[in-house]
Amino acid sequence: MAETLAVEETNRLIASDRVEGTTVYNRAGEKLGSVKNFMVDKRSGKADYAVLQFGGLFGLGSDHYPIPWDMLIYDTDLGGYVVDIDKSRLENAPRYTAEHAEPAYDHVYGRQVYGYWGVPYPFI
Amino acid sequence: MAETLAVEETNRLIASDRVEGTTVYNRAGEKLGSVKNFMVDKRSGKADYAVLQFGGLFGLGSDHYPIPWDMLIYDTDLGGYVVDIDKSRLENAPRYTAEHAEPAYDHVYGRQVYGYWGVPYPFI
Repeated sequence: MAETLAVEETNRLIASDRVEGTTVYNRAGEKLGSVKNFMVDKRSGKADYAVLQFGGLFGLGSDHYPIPWDMLIYDTDLGGYVVDIDKSRLENAPRYTAEHAEPAYDHVYGRQVYGYWGVPYPFI
Repeated sequence: MAETLAVEETNRLIASDRVEGTTVYNRAGEKLGSVKNFMVDKRSGKADYAVLQFGGLFGLGSDHYPIPWDMLIYDTDLGGYVVDIDKSRLENAPRYTAEHAEPAYDHVYGRQVYGYWGVPYPFI
């Protein structure tokens, strides 16, 4: 019955809990990992970061990689998100692990993440 | 270990999966229900609606009530969201149930929902 209630997706909108867990591919169609969750501005409701998870792939463990939300492109054929990320770029990408302190997600961190991925940092 | 990775919340941001399930109160401090999920614009990343769930309260079953995202105010003391909604206003509020067809979440529906709650519909 709960199933019949859920609106998962329309042309324009997607349910937050449908985004979480969705597979992420690179442009070569290689599976990179999945969306762990995303970070939303409390006031504006704007998703600033998608947090990607690469569970054990490439020996990267379950590190969390925040990327600018706008880098996610939904591909209806693949049924997942495509990001223009080469595997090699992940090596030095901003991430947090059990060994590193959690990021503050402040503007300093934001400029670091957006800067790494070459996306203009749009927040004040 | 997964616990140590998660960034649930900062001053400005909140994790999507932290929003889901959070309790919703009215301004009198009465528990109304919880946030089921929220509907995000795929392109802009903007949360347009929070979908509230009132599990069995007031005989309302598990209906889903979409409301404009901006109506949610996070209250750190309560540890939940406060919305300026009187219980009586829920009776005729836009909602979907197992008996009703799922909404299309198009602009017609959007104007209906935002209009009901007296919030200007900001989308084209």
